[in-house]
Amino acid sequence: MQENYVDKNFSGLVSDLQKLIQQPSISAKNMGLKECSRLIVSMMKKSGIHAELLDVKKGVPSAIYGEVKSKQNPGKTLLFYNHYDVQPEEPLELWDDKPFSGKIKGNKIFGRGSADDKGELVTRIKAVEAFLKTTGDVPCNIKFFIEGEEEIGSVHIEDYLKKYQKKLSCDAVIWEFGYVDEKDRPIISLGMKGLLYVELSKTESIRDAHSSLAVIIENPAWRLIDALQTLRDKNGKVLIKDWYKEVDQFTKEDLSIIASEPFDETSFKKEYGIKKFVGNKKGIAIKKALVGEPTCNIAGFTSGYEGPGAKTVLPSKALVKIDFRLVPKMDPTRQLARLKKHLQENGFGDIQVTLIHGEAAARTRLSDPFVKTVKKAADDSFGKSILSVSSAGTGPMFSFVKFLHSPCIAVGSTYVFARIHSPNEFARIDLLKKTTKCMCKIIRNFALQ
Amino acid sequence: MQENYVDKNFSGLVSDLQKLIQQPSISAKNMGLKECSRLIVSMMKKSGIHAELLDVKKGVPSAIYGEVKSKQNPGKTLLFYNHYDVQPEEPLELWDDKPFSGKIKGNKIFGRGSADDKGELVTRIKAVEAFLKTTGDVPCNIKFFIEGEEEIGSVHIEDYLKKYQKKLSCDAVIWEFGYVDEKDRPIISLGMKGLLYVELSKTESIRDAHSSLAVIIENPAWRLIDALQTLRDKNGKVLIKDWYKEVDQFTKEDLSIIASEPFDETSFKKEYGIKKFVGNKKGIAIKKALVGEPTCNIAGFTSGYEGPGAKTVLPSKALVKIDFRLVPKMDPTRQLARLKKHLQENGFGDIQVTLIHGEAAARTRLSDPFVKTVKKAADDSFGKSILSVSSAGTGPMFSFVKFLHSPCIAVGSTYVFARIHSPNEFARIDLLKKTTKCMCKIIRNFALQ
Repeated sequence: MQENYVDKNFSGLVSDLQKLIQQPSISAKNMGLKECSRLIVSMMKKSGIHAELLDVKKGVPSAIYGEVKSKQNPGKTLLFYNHYDVQPEEPLELWDDKPFSGKIKGNKIFGRGSADDKGELVTRIKAVEAFLKTTGDVPCNIKFFIEGEEEIGSVHIEDYLKKYQKKLSCDAVIWEFGYVDEKDRPIISLGMKGLLYVELSKTESIRDAHSSLAVIIENPAWRLIDALQTLRDKNGKVLIKDWYKEVDQFTKEDLSIIASEPFDETSFKKEYGIKKFVGNKKGIAIKKALVGEPTCNIAGFTSGYEGPGAKTVLPSKALVKIDFRLVPKMDPTRQLARLKKHLQENGFGDIQVTLIHGEAAARTRLSDPFVKTVKKAADDSFGKSILSVSSAGTGPMFSFVKFLHSPCIAVGSTYVFARIHSPNEFARIDLLKKTTKCMCKIIRNFALQ
Repeated sequence: MQENYVDKNFSGLVSDLQKLIQQPSISAKNMGLKECSRLIVSMMKKSGIHAELLDVKKGVPSAIYGEVKSKQNPGKTLLFYNHYDVQPEEPLELWDDKPFSGKIKGNKIFGRGSADDKGELVTRIKAVEAFLKTTGDVPCNIKFFIEGEEEIGSVHIEDYLKKYQKKLSCDAVIWEFGYVDEKDRPIISLGMKGLLYVELSKTESIRDAHSSLAVIIENPAWRLIDALQTLRDKNGKVLIKDWYKEVDQFTKEDLSIIASEPFDETSFKKEYGIKKFVGNKKGIAIKKALVGEPTCNIAGFTSGYEGPGAKTVLPSKALVKIDFRLVPKMDPTRQLARLKKHLQENGFGDIQVTLIHGEAAARTRLSDPFVKTVKKAADDSFGKSILSVSSAGTGPMFSFVKFLHSPCIAVGSTYVFARIHSPNEFARIDLLKKTTKCMCKIIRNFALQ
């Protein structure tokens, strides 16, 4: 394959990523979003990409739209979906450098957002820039859609997709992320799990009390614990009635792909410092769980005194944040109703349930020609790649399928142990470069598909 | 009774208390302790009381010793026990004024420590000052012992009592606090519950992970919840084996006092904004619980993301702070061993148990002549007072009995709804004045006892 149409150096790849990391953009705190979106627009313009801000509602972070029309092949459009917001940087004390340093150490660039998702975004911008710089054209129409609320559950993604449905119309979507395993093989994910993110809270009294009063005032933390205990068994199985009712078994085709996916149990355990997997899972059970098992995870629990030493206090309230991962056919609205009914029926009607976010799971079919296109590009760029029925994570893929009617595939540069959402998140420079090359090949292959 | 030997104005009572509040002294944070102890020493000296700092170990906050020898009656000694440390001021956002403002609004002085325990301390200093100012003498020897670690469980009280046993020797002790009920009747407490304060923690992995990994990495918050669930039933009964083994039933005498103690259920519910009491307790069940029911209270629970919005994180660790209140004959060391055994036997040996503090309960006998002495002084000063077998709270009374062999009685100025340990803690000026008068009467009555 001829590659003379791309600039293999991808100049500015690393320094642009550093600039992006150094601009914090935390959607959960509504911090730095405007600044970051403007920085990206100017970066895209410098790369020769038309870029503008899109808006749906006052108070909602703008999305960024990018476009390059192809002179040679104006009938086909590939859309890159990314996000410019990042997770909160806490816990601060566990970062070796400042969370937004963009510091380079050897082959790694550190900082919140380095991998998720600013690193991915940069590879895509640089791939398009490479075509424009070398040939003055792109092999097919390119569109970018970069939102600012992914880390808080893409709250307004449907508003955007609905309002700008025409503008964003395309024939295929490259999803915002993609993992690369410990043997440098990109994992091509054809699906995403869904998510139901809720807060359960109990306010018992109008103020904290001296804990000696625990004999007569109910403790809201105990109340939450009593309720939580009814939600799942010790192996993580959700005990809410009909929770799994609509869930399909894996097909034979799914199972054969799952079986062929590598998963290095030893490396994984070492990376996280764990001794065993939940429920003592081993082998294919681990891989099946990652692809297709719903969860009920406590993302946060807060009540009472959390500082050093002793405080004999009876807290007035307690709050727990739960994220339920969902698989295809589990409807977040229906699952939320089941959760509420469960609490009611088990005598916990006094616990307040607040929906933070819900989105359904989605999967692109194995038979879609775009799968082969992406797989070939990845194999060519990395030597080998791995196909995955679904990522263990969540994104608004269901909404994209609903409004854009296009296959969505996740492929990217994020090393599996890149500590995304955690302290010391990093991106590997070698993978960023290889992935930028891979994006060039995807664009080229897709144009010919 | 002649009262010409006291200065009824107690000048400086309010302004001295304000000064004390304005000097933060948070033992849990090791903050302002040195400054506060020095301030008190100089205040006591101004009142004519000999005052000095006592020390046991480097790094341990000094205690304050105060003494006035009686010329007329040098054979009898009354000791006032107080503390100059205060609870942490969190949650900050719920204070109407700054936590250490000492602001006066009508009859109230606001601020952390205003009631617990700086208000109490000031009444005692001013009572002694009143005698000295008016008569140049005190009716019996007076000693003060003011520690700086009460709010973190009087960690070194035994070290102090052992080292300074002779210096602190006395015939009776007035305890550091005392409540006044909503009808302005002081509650004279003859005992204190014990306390076992522990942290249970579980660290699962070496870092927080993306919550999609909850299918394979165990969630330490769930692990703690599973363990906590085994500790108690929904009515608060502790399910740890032999937890209540040594606990005595109430005597008939105890029960008659408990029955005669007033408890205004309606006011209490209104004050805390609660609708019912734990386990739907009513009437004497509430009073019996306050005096003699052990508890298992969650004072704090922390894990994962506690900020606003959603963060899809799988926490690496979870921690819960529990305070178990104990009643007489429950030995904290033995109870801790039972807790550890319980966790071990129920498959939770992986959960780390850290002892923060343990102290046994103590009660002064009803038949002790000091009871009558205090009761008479309180009745005379307030019109009426109430006897209580034991406070619901905890203090190192057991250690005092062990080393000083003296009866200990709690009587003071703290309005029952003074929000001690909570935001907007306050002291009532009228009660401070009445209590100072009461302290004068106790000193006088005790000298004649």
